[in-house]
Amino acid sequence: MSSSTFKILSSIISVFAIVQITRAGDPDILTDFIAPIGLPIDGNFFTFTGFRVLVGQNTPPPEFKVLKASMIEFPALFGQSVSYAVLQFPAGSINPPHTHPRSAELLFVAQGTLQVGFLDTTNKLFTQKLQTGDMFIFPKGLVHFQHNDDPKISALAVSAFGSANAGTISLPNTLFNTSIDDTVLALAFKTNVSIIETLKQGFAS
Amino acid sequence: MSSSTFKILSSIISVFAIVQITRAGDPDILTDFIAPIGLPIDGNFFTFTGFRVLVGQNTPPPEFKVLKASMIEFPALFGQSVSYAVLQFPAGSINPPHTHPRSAELLFVAQGTLQVGFLDTTNKLFTQKLQTGDMFIFPKGLVHFQHNDDPKISALAVSAFGSANAGTISLPNTLFNTSIDDTVLALAFKTNVSIIETLKQGFAS
Amino acid sequence: MSSSTFKILSSIISVFAIVQITRAGDPDILTDFIAPIGLPIDGNFFTFTGFRVLVGQNTPPPEFKVLKASMIEFPALFGQSVSYAVLQFPAGSINPPHTHPRSAELLFVAQGTLQVGFLDTTNKLFTQKLQTGDMFIFPKGLVHFQHNDDPKISALAVSAFGSANAGTISLPNTLFNTSIDDTVLALAFKTNVSIIETLKQGFAS
Amino acid sequence: MSSSTFKILSSIISVFAIVQITRAGDPDILTDFIAPIGLPIDGNFFTFTGFRVLVGQNTPPPEFKVLKASMIEFPALFGQSVSYAVLQFPAGSINPPHTHPRSAELLFVAQGTLQVGFLDTTNKLFTQKLQTGDMFIFPKGLVHFQHNDDPKISALAVSAFGSANAGTISLPNTLFNTSIDDTVLALAFKTNVSIIETLKQGFAS
Amino acid sequence: MSSSTFKILSSIISVFAIVQITRAGDPDILTDFIAPIGLPIDGNFFTFTGFRVLVGQNTPPPEFKVLKASMIEFPALFGQSVSYAVLQFPAGSINPPHTHPRSAELLFVAQGTLQVGFLDTTNKLFTQKLQTGDMFIFPKGLVHFQHNDDPKISALAVSAFGSANAGTISLPNTLFNTSIDDTVLALAFKTNVSIIETLKQGFAS
Amino acid sequence: MSSSTFKILSSIISVFAIVQITRAGDPDILTDFIAPIGLPIDGNFFTFTGFRVLVGQNTPPPEFKVLKASMIEFPALFGQSVSYAVLQFPAGSINPPHTHPRSAELLFVAQGTLQVGFLDTTNKLFTQKLQTGDMFIFPKGLVHFQHNDDPKISALAVSAFGSANAGTISLPNTLFNTSIDDTVLALAFKTNVSIIETLKQGFAS
Repeated sequence: MSSSTFKILSSIISVFAIVQITRAGDPDILTDFIAPIGLPIDGNFFTFTGFRVLVGQNTPPPEFKVLKASMIEFPALFGQSVSYAVLQFPAGSINPPHTHPRSAELLFVAQGTLQVGFLDTTNKLFTQKLQTGDMFIFPKGLVHFQHNDDPKISALAVSAFGSANAGTISLPNTLFNTSIDDTVLALAFKTNVSIIETLKQGFAS
Repeated sequence: MSSSTFKILSSIISVFAIVQITRAGDPDILTDFIAPIGLPIDGNFFTFTGFRVLVGQNTPPPEFKVLKASMIEFPALFGQSVSYAVLQFPAGSINPPHTHPRSAELLFVAQGTLQVGFLDTTNKLFTQKLQTGDMFIFPKGLVHFQHNDDPKISALAVSAFGSANAGTISLPNTLFNTSIDDTVLALAFKTNVSIIETLKQGFAS
Repeated sequence: MSSSTFKILSSIISVFAIVQITRAGDPDILTDFIAPIGLPIDGNFFTFTGFRVLVGQNTPPPEFKVLKASMIEFPALFGQSVSYAVLQFPAGSINPPHTHPRSAELLFVAQGTLQVGFLDTTNKLFTQKLQTGDMFIFPKGLVHFQHNDDPKISALAVSAFGSANAGTISLPNTLFNTSIDDTVLALAFKTNVSIIETLKQGFAS
Repeated sequence: MSSSTFKILSSIISVFAIVQITRAGDPDILTDFIAPIGLPIDGNFFTFTGFRVLVGQNTPPPEFKVLKASMIEFPALFGQSVSYAVLQFPAGSINPPHTHPRSAELLFVAQGTLQVGFLDTTNKLFTQKLQTGDMFIFPKGLVHFQHNDDPKISALAVSAFGSANAGTISLPNTLFNTSIDDTVLALAFKTNVSIIETLKQGFAS
Repeated sequence: MSSSTFKILSSIISVFAIVQITRAGDPDILTDFIAPIGLPIDGNFFTFTGFRVLVGQNTPPPEFKVLKASMIEFPALFGQSVSYAVLQFPAGSINPPHTHPRSAELLFVAQGTLQVGFLDTTNKLFTQKLQTGDMFIFPKGLVHFQHNDDPKISALAVSAFGSANAGTISLPNTLFNTSIDDTVLALAFKTNVSIIETLKQGFAS
Repeated sequence: MSSSTFKILSSIISVFAIVQITRAGDPDILTDFIAPIGLPIDGNFFTFTGFRVLVGQNTPPPEFKVLKASMIEFPALFGQSVSYAVLQFPAGSINPPHTHPRSAELLFVAQGTLQVGFLDTTNKLFTQKLQTGDMFIFPKGLVHFQHNDDPKISALAVSAFGSANAGTISLPNTLFNTSIDDTVLALAFKTNVSIIETLKQGFAS
């Protein structure tokens, strides 16, 4: 192999070393499952019926709504590294920009269509218009959103998470519906306190 | 210990169990996502359309059938610790006993009903009859199965996994549709070679 | 580098990215060891004498037998990610097909010979005839078995696990010595209920 | 339960909480360190001199500024799960609300004072006024900010991360300095497109 | 708290400690095993014959000797988080104080007796005299040693590690058989350069 | 690509597979943070003031001294995988050879200069003379030391760890300031009991 080929190879491999994943988890627990002590455990413990309300539901909710099945709602998930959410989008509604600090999100469009996007840590925007039956992966920890931009047809999506408790940080609420000091926000968003207060009022009402 | 003391203790310990646990899986990668080197990456890389075939499908497949969206079919999942499968059950069909070596399975019944079960490492059987809208968690690595025991109505389930490549070991195939020596199998199943060969023929045909 | 060389390189590296390990853990605890609270801890806590019975034992047990030193028998292993088992094989005996949901198994043949095998998730069978002094790795979560096919000489193996509680799922027992419905098993094994009941009787007697 | 019983219980459980936890992160690599192949490695590889510019620097930068020593700038950190940043705050400046998707941040105030805060996933705000010599932990993945609210005195902080590549998502930039659709943002922030455009202009200029 | 309450509490907490812990190590890989690309893989890849030399060996080696089966000698262990070593101790010999940076060590005495010990991070010494058939756990990362203090009888031990590449740092060699500056060592060991040079000569000869 | 190029490539990639990191963790907790149960939590819980004593300190301590901020001193670090230490070196002083069993150390020289070094598991020594503002990474679990070899000027360093409880094993103390048997130490250090006792007396006084 010539010297120049070696250099090219080396640089490919170096880049590869940086980009190539260093880990992609899914660790174990040391028991089959985690259950409360002293209680009889049967098949009911491993069953969650909180999503039955969706069956036969003919009209969408008036606003964007999330139903969750994390270890909070379904304790048998504790230690199993997986959970679900169902997202209901009436026509024109939005799931605002948010992050899940403990998992990627794998979204499956069961009804309708969705305009989705996420931003990587270089602030590059990745978007897609999803059809019914499509799936999209929002990588772990990144800011993302979904918008049902159809003026008439509601949408329904099912999202899987690789954590029993992915967590959600809804950014508009976290930023403008909490008591962060107006001066801090004005400096951060390069605007004045008046606009910050206008934004806060949108959430207060 | 009095009943009230027990309740207080239980609640302390329960809260403790929720708060104290520091992790059950779900590790990180060191980049936002893992992508092939040198290719332009846009929203299409993060989109999977392989499940669109399910949309508008009116008749179930003739036999039990699995559609997967793991990192094999959908490379953007690499490093994101999550994946999906859609399970289609015509009336009376079965997903035979199997294990996923790298993840728990969280199954959501989208249509029809399913009789499900798993066995823990003490060989205790946990079963449940699931209705449409129900969810069931099969813990990591354990043997489990699903049976659509309805004689007429087909069923459809969506399963989430907390690994980008959960893997599947279908036990009847692994045991009787491979070239494990008949003597080994006869000894293992406490039967004779003739019955082993009968079982093998069921898979050969 | 020519365009075709680049393509070949890219494909090698892509395959590499898939095949190359994404992780092969061995994480830490946050204390030196985990011990019961309030008890004095000395060298005895870190010592296990349960295998002394093997010393000077001249005759093998009548049937295949396992002695374990996991965190159940030896609590000091808790948090240390390692455990042992000793496997005793009288002539002609078998350790039936089984999986360990939480660890690979590294088997060392201390006496006699063993015919061993495992099946990967594509159902490919890997086998080997091991001599005294040989070692074999059964990868994590996969179905495997060991057979002492010598008609006269007993065998002894020592197995190490990279988990303090590897767990064992013995498949014949899990499938035919539990109360899984006969219909489910007949469908799964592509046979009739009569053969299933014959197999179950083998374990019942 | 009596008060004394509660205290004993609490202390048992507290001790238990300290002793029992087996891990919270911090896994291993399988080699001593990760280095480029084929290059001679000596002490220089493990040394980073990029922060020498701070030595003897008498005037703060005109704006808030971050110097990083992550695996990008300092490749020897690859695989070592730790990195640094130095944060320079002229009087009145701010480090806007942001998240680190892959690590907690442990900030140490070396000069001046800082007003800091973070929001948990229930949107509860935790704040503190830090003096020189104080340290604050921003938990993994949560939104947080730092503000040098002193009108005259600049501040300097050193932050440690438990990841070689913690990543940063600066929320004002991610939200208003990228091409997310104005309609999406207006819906998300419960305001009109005009205010969104005003905010975007703040970053454009 | 009464004695009986204490017992109940202790048992609750003990059970809790066993059940509640969700993991202490033992993560997954994302494929069944890791193998070189492009080579045919069969049972031989998973077999290691390097320990056959021990079979029928009647005389111990002249000095303490270690045979390893880590991922260096046995590449199929890569990704499987387990490895072995065989330790041969002629009468009176020692395995000097050392650490394994990436794993606990579970030692099984196959022949003879061993005096063993380790020091925790508070410098507390834990020792034990092990008989043939005994097992001892040296926790991860701690300094430990083994001494065959029998004047006539040799000893043999088999050690399992919960890492495919546990690593060994033999402290006398690391400290006195490398080129650490004499002044540094004299300061560190609170002695003079003359004694340091005497110690170094012991390893040089 | 020619056959020989393929072989070279394959060997590069094989070496790469061995050397290239298999993991470099930073796992998650399943809650935002870990806090004592039943206590009100506010910003104070996340603040540590134990390093304020360093502010305005004009004279160095008489001997090498470490101030720690690990989860022992600062419980909010529990589960956050990061901690700090401040190292104070009067002129001529040393931080003796030691290891941290649970983390790499990233050292930043804030004042003065330091001569530092570590030894990898092949006993290769890596050294460096660090200037004020320099940073050095001591890889996880390896033996390392720092020496302020300036005869007049004291030095100060800040070290970050990728674990909330990195642990420290100071080797001279662990070896010669504990009750390890003199015979064991004499054999280990290839010297006589008299020299061992001389060394022990250095620590006893």
